[in-house]
Amino acid sequence: MDRPLQDVLKVHCYGCGALNPHGLHIKSSWDGEELLCCWQPEPYHIGHPGYVYGGTIASVVDCHCIWTALAQHCRETGHSLQEGPPAVMFVTGSLQINYLKPIPIDGEMVLRARVLETGERKTIVGCRVFHSGIECAVAELVAVRAKLGS
Amino acid sequence: MDRPLQDVLKVHCYGCGALNPHGLHIKSSWDGEELLCCWQPEPYHIGHPGYVYGGTIASVVDCHCIWTALAQHCRETGHSLQEGPPAVMFVTGSLQINYLKPIPIDGEMVLRARVLETGERKTIVGCRVFHSGIECAVAELVAVRAKLGS
Repeated sequence: MDRPLQDVLKVHCYGCGALNPHGLHIKSSWDGEELLCCWQPEPYHIGHPGYVYGGTIASVVDCHCIWTALAQHCRETGHSLQEGPPAVMFVTGSLQINYLKPIPIDGEMVLRARVLETGERKTIVGCRVFHSGIECAVAELVAVRAKLGS
Repeated sequence: MDRPLQDVLKVHCYGCGALNPHGLHIKSSWDGEELLCCWQPEPYHIGHPGYVYGGTIASVVDCHCIWTALAQHCRETGHSLQEGPPAVMFVTGSLQINYLKPIPIDGEMVLRARVLETGERKTIVGCRVFHSGIECAVAELVAVRAKLGS
């Protein structure tokens, strides 16, 4: 697997930024046609006792999907993140998440995301969240493209 | 305004639990027919620099909507949280959030939520998120009712 994208392009985001000392520090890497993220919650990331907080799940999904949109854009345009960010950035336009099963706080969450559709301004990303091989949540995120610095 | 619900019924949830030392500690109170939450993010809760992280917005929305479903249930059944939790609990079945405008990291986020529909097992909650009087996000959450301890 490739080096995690967040270790190549370091940002300040709470969810995924290597430069944010307080953040969740998720890591996303290509695994074939999907972007993969394995993430271990802290014991305090609970909602109901013993289970991961839905807001934390939404947070990890949000960042991982935005990186998926960005990574796919880079693949298609031949841009390497080693050279820095591309000329566009992606922001979350909307997020829909269906919680299928509670996710135990022990053990890794595994996220697999891929671009479902690319429009002129919007990229739709689908994401599935697993724990111990069981699908526990599915999500769809609309990423809106903006010029960097706009 | 009433005493915040989370100061009456203390839980361990990362988003809203008074008993979680690491959490966001949101506070929700009735304001007429709406449940109101005013919450100040920390400087590190950023996504893109200067703006609140979408995952943190989703987190605050998630908890505040679940408390709205619970509070409405208590109103309708005449249950006082002073006596402890009611016989049912609510978990997030799905969350849809539309981000309309970026929310500056400085200043409070204000959330106003209300129950839109109550079914046998599901309660649909609508929530609007404001900053400086401007509507920045709208959300709909499906809360699923379960027996406490189930």
